[in-house]
Amino acid sequence: MERSGPVLTIDTMNPTVKNVEYAVRGPIVARAVELERELSEGMKKPFAEVIKANIGDAHAMGQQPITFFRQVLALCSYPELLNDSTFPEDAKSRAYRILQSCGGNSMGSYSASQGIDSVRQDVAHYIERRDGGVPCDPDNIYLTTGASDGIMTMLKLLVCGEGATRTGVMISIPQYPLYSAALAELGAVQINYYLNEEKCWSLDISELQRALDEARHYCSPRALCIINPGNPTGQVQSRQCIEDVIRFAAKERLFLMADEVYQDNVYAEGCQFHSFKKVLFEMGPEYSNTVELASFHSTSKCYMGECGFRGGYMEVMNMDDEVKAQLTKLLSVRLCPPVPGQALMDLVVNPPQPGEPSYDNFIKERTATLSALAEKAKLTEQVLNTVQGISCNPVQGAMYSFPHITIPEKAIKEAMEQGQQPDMFYCMKMLEETGICLVPGSGFGQKEGTYHFRMTILPPIDKLQILLIKVKEFHQKFTQQYS
Amino acid sequence: MERSGPVLTIDTMNPTVKNVEYAVRGPIVARAVELERELSEGMKKPFAEVIKANIGDAHAMGQQPITFFRQVLALCSYPELLNDSTFPEDAKSRAYRILQSCGGNSMGSYSASQGIDSVRQDVAHYIERRDGGVPCDPDNIYLTTGASDGIMTMLKLLVCGEGATRTGVMISIPQYPLYSAALAELGAVQINYYLNEEKCWSLDISELQRALDEARHYCSPRALCIINPGNPTGQVQSRQCIEDVIRFAAKERLFLMADEVYQDNVYAEGCQFHSFKKVLFEMGPEYSNTVELASFHSTSKCYMGECGFRGGYMEVMNMDDEVKAQLTKLLSVRLCPPVPGQALMDLVVNPPQPGEPSYDNFIKERTATLSALAEKAKLTEQVLNTVQGISCNPVQGAMYSFPHITIPEKAIKEAMEQGQQPDMFYCMKMLEETGICLVPGSGFGQKEGTYHFRMTILPPIDKLQILLIKVKEFHQKFTQQYS
Repeated sequence: MERSGPVLTIDTMNPTVKNVEYAVRGPIVARAVELERELSEGMKKPFAEVIKANIGDAHAMGQQPITFFRQVLALCSYPELLNDSTFPEDAKSRAYRILQSCGGNSMGSYSASQGIDSVRQDVAHYIERRDGGVPCDPDNIYLTTGASDGIMTMLKLLVCGEGATRTGVMISIPQYPLYSAALAELGAVQINYYLNEEKCWSLDISELQRALDEARHYCSPRALCIINPGNPTGQVQSRQCIEDVIRFAAKERLFLMADEVYQDNVYAEGCQFHSFKKVLFEMGPEYSNTVELASFHSTSKCYMGECGFRGGYMEVMNMDDEVKAQLTKLLSVRLCPPVPGQALMDLVVNPPQPGEPSYDNFIKERTATLSALAEKAKLTEQVLNTVQGISCNPVQGAMYSFPHITIPEKAIKEAMEQGQQPDMFYCMKMLEETGICLVPGSGFGQKEGTYHFRMTILPPIDKLQILLIKVKEFHQKFTQQYS
Repeated sequence: MERSGPVLTIDTMNPTVKNVEYAVRGPIVARAVELERELSEGMKKPFAEVIKANIGDAHAMGQQPITFFRQVLALCSYPELLNDSTFPEDAKSRAYRILQSCGGNSMGSYSASQGIDSVRQDVAHYIERRDGGVPCDPDNIYLTTGASDGIMTMLKLLVCGEGATRTGVMISIPQYPLYSAALAELGAVQINYYLNEEKCWSLDISELQRALDEARHYCSPRALCIINPGNPTGQVQSRQCIEDVIRFAAKERLFLMADEVYQDNVYAEGCQFHSFKKVLFEMGPEYSNTVELASFHSTSKCYMGECGFRGGYMEVMNMDDEVKAQLTKLLSVRLCPPVPGQALMDLVVNPPQPGEPSYDNFIKERTATLSALAEKAKLTEQVLNTVQGISCNPVQGAMYSFPHITIPEKAIKEAMEQGQQPDMFYCMKMLEETGICLVPGSGFGQKEGTYHFRMTILPPIDKLQILLIKVKEFHQKFTQQYS
């Protein structure tokens, strides 16, 4: 070891951390922030504002919070307001119930590490309703600091071994980069299975089998991660596909992790959200009593889009009791998930009911947001498919389009010379010329030699229209320039 | 690998997770929760209620939140209230400023991964004021999900190597078990240095040297963790001691981690909080330009006690720029700390100022809480020291007493036969007989053959008085029973 200079340097730090990559907040976003500052300082740019279509951050794009949720949160934050006659009674009774479940009736108390009891009960009831009566035990519910925290925690339990026995985890390509980042941080082996872009990003069991068989030569595959509706790819899995995946997991002895944070974000006709839990249960005891499943939900997406509160839950099924005890112990070290996020999760699973004073307005707000998203999903697909060299699958669900883009050879060559992925080169150029911030497909993974970008459908419709036209014009200009 | 049964079992799970222990929420707390349920179901017990003196959870013990903080949080949650004339103007202007810093003016947006810019600026100003003008760069501030999250993240950067080059981290014994838990999870080597109970839990440099010299034989020591004011031991470090520690860290090339979450909790006459940052700066450029330091603060302790919001920050000094970039990247995977916790942290570092409408009430509330804590610290020490077989150092700061207890040989024998640590046996018996929930010293570490418990000083004074009498009576009875 050197005897001078800092103790902690890039050469002496934890190498697994160095291996972590997270494109959604990578160099392109850093540059976008810089551009915003330059604009605000009066520097001249070929655009008037930076539009961040890189991240599923609904409120930042102008989506309004659900009034009822925020009323209850205000009441919980400052319970003096319970005496304020302008707040509706149902908001007050929800707030009262949440506060009754908090130590000293304050959101400032730690909760149980697994989450507030009454919130976990409400989550269980929600799941039962959602899944048409399939039973749910609140003991299987763990509240989390957003879904990312739950996913990371589950992976932490799963990963072990060294060399050829090191745990392998199957993830879709394209994937949401939390997965690759978490696996890198844990030093696990990432096993890629490719979604089928030709068939609307569907999941083929034969591809799962191929990936698994290859991986068994160099690691010990133990878990299979699914994102449904898909991020970044926007597909919604059919019931049949989910059954096939469950059968595959059972046959191959894989722990299933189902990332279902977009469960309300289904737009395409004929598509419907099926939870892994429900399908598993309906497949009968041979499966429902044996296949290990963790599913994840969050307050950040769907119609509420409350990312900043970092609320979420996970449900585990068929998890070994001793492992559950270890999970609870592990969670206890971080004391508890943020209580305001738990309160918000409670409201999401227990919203205003018919007959309650806030019901009509809640339905109105929720419907407006989901309809607007459906409209924007359609518009995005339509406009992008009018551009030669861009080909976009239907955005069946979630919040993103992930179109295939044709990048001319000359541009690929120039990118390579600059040591950049061609789609990073493309997105960086788009940012500099139009102010639009997208994430290159290479940040999510894609078939060798193909290029994509991820764009959220979140901007308000008038802005989205302008954005899509700008993307179109940029692509045409770029193609011309490098042809 | 077995071909049937669950994929994930106690035998196949991540072994480092199994090694994690966290006594503050361990078996004794699980039993306390059970007892509470039994009481509520009408079972007869020798006590009417369970008193949880195991964890620094101020609001759960009846401490009231600071009105101003909660007003601002309500305003941020439900900005309609900005039109409500019953809220003071300074609360409104703080809320307005926070919302202006949020994407779409909503706490529901993700913030930057490092935290909201304006909050980091306010934290920097707070540190400058606290440290008498020592400059603070907002770029060195990282907002966190409570202090635990920051500490875990820093350790994650630091830990690497295998076998004899595996990173060693020095922690005090007794310690707050987050440290041992984090080190176990990361597979780092825990290097114990013992605080000197005879000299009021002081830190002796010779003991640091002994621990380090021994550890160099089997690991690569890279970091030194200090908790000041001390948890669970309640001592407040002198300025001289901090200087000596910094000199030691410089000489031995150790990264310093200063856990300063109890910085406002100083009660004893002649004691004063000195931040490591300030002392480091005052030691001149030889130290202030070289010694790497991370210091941690939180919304959970001090006079606010807002644990449930999971707010906190860390400040890094002399951290290598490339490592800082890696730190930011690592944080970005979790997207951002909870925004309500960031807002609360902002209020803590930027409370009402003289002349503002909420100032007088804020000072009144803060003073009342801190005076009550000082009184309770004194009372706890006094009463415990009247008990033969209990010896308690002055509670100079923080929120806990950590008295030495004499356990009779016969009790030690019986505990051992039951496979229990003697102080766990003692605390479990106390819980069953009195309903008082404490944490055994073995959960924090202690010199071989000595026994302690940690008790918070947080219950309201009348309840604390009863609690202390009950502890006294229990100890006398226990001693008699096993003599």
